[in-house]
Amino acid sequence: MAVGFVLISTAPSKEHEVYDELLKVEEATELYPLFGEYDLLTKIEAPDFNLLGQVVVDRIRPIPGVIDTKTLTCINF
Amino acid sequence: MAVGFVLISTAPSKEHEVYDELLKVEEATELYPLFGEYDLLTKIEAPDFNLLGQVVVDRIRPIPGVIDTKTLTCINF
Amino acid sequence: MAVGFVLISTAPSKEHEVYDELLKVEEATELYPLFGEYDLLTKIEAPDFNLLGQVVVDRIRPIPGVIDTKTLTCINF
Amino acid sequence: MAVGFVLISTAPSKEHEVYDELLKVEEATELYPLFGEYDLLTKIEAPDFNLLGQVVVDRIRPIPGVIDTKTLTCINF
Amino acid sequence: MAVGFVLISTAPSKEHEVYDELLKVEEATELYPLFGEYDLLTKIEAPDFNLLGQVVVDRIRPIPGVIDTKTLTCINF
Amino acid sequence: MAVGFVLISTAPSKEHEVYDELLKVEEATELYPLFGEYDLLTKIEAPDFNLLGQVVVDRIRPIPGVIDTKTLTCINF
Amino acid sequence: MAVGFVLISTAPSKEHEVYDELLKVEEATELYPLFGEYDLLTKIEAPDFNLLGQVVVDRIRPIPGVIDTKTLTCINF
Amino acid sequence: MAVGFVLISTAPSKEHEVYDELLKVEEATELYPLFGEYDLLTKIEAPDFNLLGQVVVDRIRPIPGVIDTKTLTCINF
Repeated sequence: MAVGFVLISTAPSKEHEVYDELLKVEEATELYPLFGEYDLLTKIEAPDFNLLGQVVVDRIRPIPGVIDTKTLTCINF
Repeated sequence: MAVGFVLISTAPSKEHEVYDELLKVEEATELYPLFGEYDLLTKIEAPDFNLLGQVVVDRIRPIPGVIDTKTLTCINF
Repeated sequence: MAVGFVLISTAPSKEHEVYDELLKVEEATELYPLFGEYDLLTKIEAPDFNLLGQVVVDRIRPIPGVIDTKTLTCINF
Repeated sequence: MAVGFVLISTAPSKEHEVYDELLKVEEATELYPLFGEYDLLTKIEAPDFNLLGQVVVDRIRPIPGVIDTKTLTCINF
Repeated sequence: MAVGFVLISTAPSKEHEVYDELLKVEEATELYPLFGEYDLLTKIEAPDFNLLGQVVVDRIRPIPGVIDTKTLTCINF
Repeated sequence: MAVGFVLISTAPSKEHEVYDELLKVEEATELYPLFGEYDLLTKIEAPDFNLLGQVVVDRIRPIPGVIDTKTLTCINF
Repeated sequence: MAVGFVLISTAPSKEHEVYDELLKVEEATELYPLFGEYDLLTKIEAPDFNLLGQVVVDRIRPIPGVIDTKTLTCINF
Repeated sequence: MAVGFVLISTAPSKEHEVYDELLKVEEATELYPLFGEYDLLTKIEAPDFNLLGQVVVDRIRPIPGVIDTKTLTCINF
């Protein structure tokens, strides 16, 4: 199982809308509004890294109001 | 009392408009135009951290001309 | 309950040692090695924000091998 | 009067020591421990910008435990 | 021969379109979608540094969907 | 005399237009297109720091095609 | 095959030594000194992402003179 | 002629020493102490880009007290 944390910047006033849309993304298993440089943080899980990438590119980034994303990919020791 | 400092990037030519709007936000107790990476800095105070977050999301970010914000949250030693 | 995600940069070759020490911090409820700019990510939980700050300052940053931390604090909508 | 806000990164475990030393710097009129990328934030005031620069270079940066500083300089509209 | 690596941020949902356009740029000798802060990475080669700069300014940045670029220029030891 | 260096990000394809407009700003005494994170760098000089800030806010940032600026302010030792 | 690009900051004066050591890392298939924020860039390839992570943690970061690394991981469209 | 601007971070209390050493580097044609994220900025000129790189690697970075550098390379339109 590949795990990642996606930091999301939204357009001002779009935080709630993007938050609600993310709740519908089944791979997004945790979701938090944030203080600081990014507006939302979501934990995503997928069978492998390429599918993890596709969740970001095809499911999260196209959500209206998403301006920028930064994905932190987890590895195993 | 929760305290935070919000770094604000504005659209070019919108610095003065955003500044004037921020003067109306009562939780914004200090306000400065800046050199450097961000255009404005405001100190905000609210009864607790979640209300502090709502000041940013619901009062500051929606101001027309605000492009991006970065909130530095203060803690107590 | 206050929640935060701490991004941790370690000294080269200290990733495993810091990882093992973090496993002993009870407030650290999730822990991942990372690709990218930071080496480890841990989710921390505490009764309130100030106690959350103390976990970072007094329990995480002093771990030998920790060079830098960046804490993302979660708020509620 | 020139005003600036200095973001300060300290060595892990040195936050309190640097905080205590900053309390002795008379030009530092406000001082906060922070969550996030920097550990402390202090507001400094001096008669002009060059003297403001000297407060940073000669009074703040030399404090044992200070690793890095980033000064945000305020201007007037 | 001057070599550079261009980190590219695209508008959300434009990753594939920008990728396809970059395949037509002959100076772009390697091309990868990325996790993390940037969406695409391409290696570019040109007879000298100024021509390398023109590839970025005149061939890559104008591609519809490109929001931002950061060019890492290679030197010889 | 106050001196600053303004790092400028332009919209893709607007580099030349912004460059040409900057040539008309008399306080801009040096001007360079850049590789890297920013697209242009200009050195500005003004009688004092507040006037330097106004050159940035009122003369440079409003130029069509300017997306973001970061001003490095020089001090005297 | 998993592919990544590792941006490496070295201690001043250690650029050549780290460069020479990287030449011995078989997974490092391309290697460039850089202008800009990072000192070296190397392309690494491994059978899967976790092994790619281990190349960074166990083979690259321990090289004497490496201060910091930032790994850009490639995905497939 | 290749032109670059080198942003320099120094160890705290080493600003003056590094400044004095840079005055001896003939390729460094302009030199300023800075507010903000970096401590010094120097403009360097050399016959070509590779020699410009060698000025940074062999003449500037080895100066005792230099912690980090970021070189902005200029191109011609």
